[in-house]
Amino acid sequence: MAAVFDRIAIIGVGLIGGSIARAARETGAAGDVVLFDRDTAALKRAGEIGFGRAAATIEDAVRDADAVFHCVPVGAMAAVAAEIAPELSPDTVVSDVGSVKESVAKVLGAALPGVHVIPAHPVAGTEKSGPDAGFASLFKGRWCIITPPPRADATMVERLSQFWQRLGSKVDLMDATHHDRVLAVTSHLPHLIAYSIVGTASDLEEVTKSEVIKYSAGGFRDFTRIAASDPVMWRDVFLTNRGAVLEMLGRFTEDLTALQRAIRWGDGDTLMREFTRARTIRKAIIDAGQDSASVNFGRNTTKAEE
Amino acid sequence: MAAVFDRIAIIGVGLIGGSIARAARETGAAGDVVLFDRDTAALKRAGEIGFGRAAATIEDAVRDADAVFHCVPVGAMAAVAAEIAPELSPDTVVSDVGSVKESVAKVLGAALPGVHVIPAHPVAGTEKSGPDAGFASLFKGRWCIITPPPRADATMVERLSQFWQRLGSKVDLMDATHHDRVLAVTSHLPHLIAYSIVGTASDLEEVTKSEVIKYSAGGFRDFTRIAASDPVMWRDVFLTNRGAVLEMLGRFTEDLTALQRAIRWGDGDTLMREFTRARTIRKAIIDAGQDSASVNFGRNTTKAEE
Repeated sequence: MAAVFDRIAIIGVGLIGGSIARAARETGAAGDVVLFDRDTAALKRAGEIGFGRAAATIEDAVRDADAVFHCVPVGAMAAVAAEIAPELSPDTVVSDVGSVKESVAKVLGAALPGVHVIPAHPVAGTEKSGPDAGFASLFKGRWCIITPPPRADATMVERLSQFWQRLGSKVDLMDATHHDRVLAVTSHLPHLIAYSIVGTASDLEEVTKSEVIKYSAGGFRDFTRIAASDPVMWRDVFLTNRGAVLEMLGRFTEDLTALQRAIRWGDGDTLMREFTRARTIRKAIIDAGQDSASVNFGRNTTKAEE
Repeated sequence: MAAVFDRIAIIGVGLIGGSIARAARETGAAGDVVLFDRDTAALKRAGEIGFGRAAATIEDAVRDADAVFHCVPVGAMAAVAAEIAPELSPDTVVSDVGSVKESVAKVLGAALPGVHVIPAHPVAGTEKSGPDAGFASLFKGRWCIITPPPRADATMVERLSQFWQRLGSKVDLMDATHHDRVLAVTSHLPHLIAYSIVGTASDLEEVTKSEVIKYSAGGFRDFTRIAASDPVMWRDVFLTNRGAVLEMLGRFTEDLTALQRAIRWGDGDTLMREFTRARTIRKAIIDAGQDSASVNFGRNTTKAEE
């Protein structure tokens, strides 16, 4: 199968950039994969692993690229765009992988007026970071949301879409603002809550840290996985998707306060009603192939057949 | 190896009761395992699976048992204790598996004045319920917290401890009140938060349920697993550990409000500081063997070796 892009440049060789590079090579979605990272140790490591060719400068990386992927924290995109602007041809597709789309569209659009800016967001990841964290199958069966700006070139949107499909993704097109509200609830709010409860547990005076760790199998450990995600990436997400996050957080706090009130007043019926409906959503997520059906995420369940 | 108890009675053949029965048979921790459940369909199913002998009545189940395990929701323990009281001999050990210990100690102690009431809590489980959900290895490497009342018989406490160790658990002794505070943060609060955010996501008008499901891989899906746990069990936990849960919830809300304020005011330094310390706890939990080291809980990460 022909490559979707003859040459792609990946700026940022962490979990997502490194996974795109690996998947693009493995699937032949890109003819040539050129890498750059301002963290020279990470770039060197990426070159050693060999999932692309490390460029000496960011200008070298993007020159003659058909598509440039910003795989950096959302807050770093403006600086990257400013650096590469002079090297891009009008045919270049510039995309990204950020978890926030409205601000990214604004920033990239302003910095790169003459090229095809088409932001995108692969809804996939792990709690790990860095060039060793990526793997080619990360996007398989996961959704990639492309948020084309109002006057985007349809051909280029289609080509970017093909690229993500080649990596194994399912592709949706969405308005950037709507994307930011959907992800605020399916991704940003869960991460904020996870970070927060880990902080709460760490600060207890009467319960020791070793107790929190020993008895974490009661539920807490699940939150610590999410809260182990890259802090810089998440700081930037919250700073750039402020409005949507604050609104979802407000709704969550209201709902939690209602449960709190039910607990205080011994209102078991309210608790039952709220606790019961969650099972339906879990089942739907598994049926949609968006999570494993394995009990306990498959961990420590060497369940004997009976 | 000799059985720790010649005969045990399991009241409630769900996930935990069914797992104790399976593990007790597999390890020889009990010579004979007798089962009862007031849900006749569940009891019948347990008999078919064959992890114990189904008794016709609860009285038959506990008569001549050396140890009786209440594996029912915390709110159902008083009724079970009242039913079995006349059948127990003074040598019987009565224990349970509830996630709340102070109220259970009170309820069982009051209903069963003449026997050895020694509450316990295996910190293990999955999101599944019912007789088919259990498995013998559920307790392997997990902690079981025994909370002996002040005047408990040391020999019986030791025997119960041996029983749990035989099932693969590590055993801790703890004061019931302290247990309830530790578990409020490592287990009860995480479940309440998970139930709450699933409710918040379900109620959004502008984001469809199908969008929540499709893009749940961004973090939300982790919460839905916990929120798929048994609603009756959790209702009872919150109603009986009210004080500790409300206090931990208050602390959590304060911490979340501080993060909310940092987001509103664009205070990236505070976000970074809070987000950074979570990684240490995650690592400690994995090092302590309390969670799998597999990235993404091992799901969909067919990570190629490179």
